[in-house]
Parts: sequence; C-alpha cells; structure tokens
Amino acid sequence: MAQSFKGKPVADLVREEVIQEVAVWKAGGHAPKMAVLLVEGDPASYHYAQAKGKAAEKLGIDYELHTFSSEVTEDELLKTIGQLNEDQSVHGIMLELPLPKHIDTKKATAAIDPAKDVDGLTPHNRLATVTGEAGLYPATPQACIRLLKHYGHTLAGKDVVLVGRGETVGLPLIHLLLRENATVTVCHSRTPDIGAHIRKADIAFVAVGRKRLITPEMVHPDLLVIDAGINETEDGGITGDVAPEVIDSVAGMSPTPGGVGSVTTALLFANLMRAMKLQNLQAKEVECNGNV
Amino acid sequence: MAQSFKGKPVADLVREEVIQEVAVWKAGGHAPKMAVLLVEGDPASYHYAQAKGKAAEKLGIDYELHTFSSEVTEDELLKTIGQLNEDQSVHGIMLELPLPKHIDTKKATAAIDPAKDVDGLTPHNRLATVTGEAGLYPATPQACIRLLKHYGHTLAGKDVVLVGRGETVGLPLIHLLLRENATVTVCHSRTPDIGAHIRKADIAFVAVGRKRLITPEMVHPDLLVIDAGINETEDGGITGDVAPEVIDSVAGMSPTPGGVGSVTTALLFANLMRAMKLQNLQAKEVECNGNV
Repeated sequence: MAQSFKGKPVADLVREEVIQEVAVWKAGGHAPKMAVLLVEGDPASYHYAQAKGKAAEKLGIDYELHTFSSEVTEDELLKTIGQLNEDQSVHGIMLELPLPKHIDTKKATAAIDPAKDVDGLTPHNRLATVTGEAGLYPATPQACIRLLKHYGHTLAGKDVVLVGRGETVGLPLIHLLLRENATVTVCHSRTPDIGAHIRKADIAFVAVGRKRLITPEMVHPDLLVIDAGINETEDGGITGDVAPEVIDSVAGMSPTPGGVGSVTTALLFANLMRAMKLQNLQAKEVECNGNV
Repeated sequence: MAQSFKGKPVADLVREEVIQEVAVWKAGGHAPKMAVLLVEGDPASYHYAQAKGKAAEKLGIDYELHTFSSEVTEDELLKTIGQLNEDQSVHGIMLELPLPKHIDTKKATAAIDPAKDVDGLTPHNRLATVTGEAGLYPATPQACIRLLKHYGHTLAGKDVVLVGRGETVGLPLIHLLLRENATVTVCHSRTPDIGAHIRKADIAFVAVGRKRLITPEMVHPDLLVIDAGINETEDGGITGDVAPEVIDSVAGMSPTPGGVGSVTTALLFANLMRAMKLQNLQAKEVECNGNV
C-alpha cells in the first residue's frame, strides 16, 4: 500500500508555526500584514486573492486587498507598489499574475521590495534561490521538499529526477534539491524517454503542467513521487501531471488536489514571517549606523 | 582512436571573429577597450592580467591595466570601478579575483556596470545566465559548450552528466546545457557513485577542481568528456579533473592544458564584443528619448 503524501497535515504544522510567530510579533508591537495587488480580468486570480484573504484571517494576519480595473496604467500600479514598499505597516506584497498585456510583468514584479517579496519573484530573490543566499524563495518548490521530508524521506545522496524546467517551479527546484545534496537529473519536453530516467531514480518531482504526463509504465515500486502540476479537468476540478492510478505502482505519491498546493499556500505565510525577520534585521542595521 | 578536443582551433576561430568585429567597431569610430583591475598580492592574478594584456594586443583591442597595492581601500576600488563604468571609451571591465580579505568581493563585483561585465560576475548577469535573458554569460561554461560543438557534437536530447555545482562553472553550465535541450544530471561531492552516472551518459562535463577525480573505470568507450578543471601539478604545470589516460577509454576528450582554458580566454574578448553591442543598444535608446 503506497504512502499518500497528503498536504493537509504538513500545512497544519506550518500554520501552527506561523500562528506562534504571529503572536510573538504582535506582542512586540508589529501586527503582520500582507498586501495583495489584484488587477481585474482574470477569474482565477480573483479566486486566489480571496482564498489568501481567508487564510490570512485564520492566522491572525492583517490582509489588505488593492483591486485595480483592467485598464489600470503601469505607472499607477508601480506607484502603489512603491507606496507599499515604503509603508512600514505592510510586511508582504503579492502581485497576482497574470497581469493585462499592456503592463510589463517583469518591471512590475521587479519593483517590489525584495524584503517584502513573499512570492520570490524579484530578481534579487530569484538569484538568491539559485545561490542559496539569504532571501525569500518561491513557495511551491519549498512545498515540494517540505512535503516529502514530512513523510520521513531524505534527499541527500538520492537519485532525484525533476521533470520540468519552468521559471516558477522547475528552475528554482533544481537548486533547492542540489542544496539538499540530491543528485539531480533534469528532464523536459526534449528528453527522448522520461520514463527511462524515472525508472532509475529514487524520487521524482514533476512540475510541467500537463495531465497524465507520468503514467504507470514510467515508474517502479520503490519510487516516491511529488506532483507539483496543476491542470484543469473537464468537470472544473484540478488534477496533477501524474495519472492518479500511478499511486498503485509506487511506494509513495502526493495527491492532486490535496498535495503540494495546500502546503504552498501555508508556506506563503511562512515566507511573510521570514520577510518580517529580513525587514527587522535591516532596520537594526540602519539603527546601528545612526542613519534612521 | 579517441578525438582530442583541442582548444586552439576553436580559440583561433573565435579570435578571427573578434578581429573582424574589432575592425568594424574601429571603422565606426569606437576603438574597443578592456580595463583590468588588479590588486597586488596574488601572483596568479598578476600572471592572468599580463596574459590578457598580450591577448588584447594581438586582437587590436586597447587594454588598460589599473594596479592597486594590497592595502587599497574598498572605497578607492569602488571609486575606480565607478569611473570606469562612466568612461564611455571603456567597454569591458574585469576585476581580477581573489581580492584581499578586507575588500567585500560581492560588493566590488556588483558595482561593475552589467553591460561592461565581461566576466559575467554581476547579479544581473548571473541571473541572466540562469534564465537565458540578454546579458554577458561567464566565459568558461560557454567555452565548454563551444568546444564540444566545434568537433561536430550536439547536445539536444543527449544524456549529459555534469560533475560539479560551483558558482563559477557548474552552476551556470547547468542552465546553458538545459537551454541546449540536453537532459542534465548534476553530480557532486555527495553523489555516492559518480561513475555509475557517467557510465550511463552520452557526454560528461567535469568542473570540480580535483586531480584524477575521473578515472578510466568510470567511463565507457562511446563517452565524450569535456574537462573544465584546472589543478596545479607538483612540477608547476596544470592538469584537469580527468586523469589523462582516460582518453584511451572514451570516444573523445578535451586535453588539459590546451582544452577549455584556451577557448575561455578567447571568449572573454568575444564577450567584450557582445558588451559593446549591449552598450550601443542602450546608447541608442537614450538618444531616441532625447535624454542624452
């Protein structure tokens, strides 16, 4: 019987940690606050922004939603980002993507203060994720690793196959896995036989965004599988990149929904806690220099 | 009889391309100039700076050496970098490493204008190397790929093992290889059996910095090997990471010395040509906006 790497117990633990940290921050006079920027026009973004608001409320975190019409100019959006960067009562800034085409997404994300960039989208944090320097790393790759470890598995010295090399998940995950001392094989659309690699691996991480990319004949009974793919089903639900029946042919697998995704949302708020530490550290340094 | 992937023919070709580009730039009124910053105290750095000066001269490139005593302050060094950034007659800036301990290397390299950073050391160019955005990529990883391709080999769809995950060569090389559509397995000091991975691969790139890391029993007769390692020998010469006799057990291998290293030096000047294009583009944009 395969292990099911369910996300909820992990997300619950992360949330407990966050709730404790929130209490400490509040006792010290800092009420943690997350600001979300939502440009209208993408129904999924609206849904995600709402869900984050509810999650924040449960954790005792203040939540500030800034909604813009789909005709908002780039300058207006950048101006609000600048104000939130300056606002010392705001500790995390999330910009819901995708943005309308007339706005330069790269420019908008780069405008966020790296110490408030809980999504890890700024150039500073993207490079930090690669090099391991201090910063805010994207939540989904972190969730993949935390989920696996929660169920008692280790990565050091293991043969890991990563399927996918996208900017959001695959690319940062390469570097998180290498820093866990895994031997990492990166497969992608131009790999002639992905199954041949997975059949030789201890663990497979899949982050492509294609339904049923991984099927039972591509796996083996001792394999562990973490599925970070999110795809819509015909009936409006979601499914991963790994065919659900694969769980009968492996030693462990994360379900979708109910796997990586739920851990990701919790880790966004863990990133907010980390952001507050980074901001506090900077404030202290400024004070030491007498430059306040 | 194995192919020897000698660097000289490749370096000669690169240099021919550079000489042609230099002529075009000079005809347009821009004499290409490289500035090198050398802080005294490291004999190898002195040697490299001299070698670059000679190489520049042969290519018709102006070369400006700024030598500092080992007691130079960080501020003095940063001031010179700032002046070279502003100096429109200087197109490339190289800071010889290592620097004395009292100077923050990260701060100093980050101070270089990314469009003049021919070594690809600035945060902007390190991230560009990862993402594939326009920028100046480090020369050694580029040299590894150019050397292999020169001898008629392709990377798309191939199983490539990369041994080493260092910041200078291994880490950027992961991303250059992925963009060539190779399936990339990254091995390192915590990989239990590197030979097991190399014996399954089509091509191996090695960039660790340890003599005889790769020995004949770790390879197979159809393997191609690119050795980017540079290690000193007891008699004052250099040797790679791959034991020299491995060439008798593989289909092709780069020698050390005379392999990757000679291509790297030539590609530094190809990067200078690329830097000039990046700078020219920026200058044009400024002119269009009427902000000169």
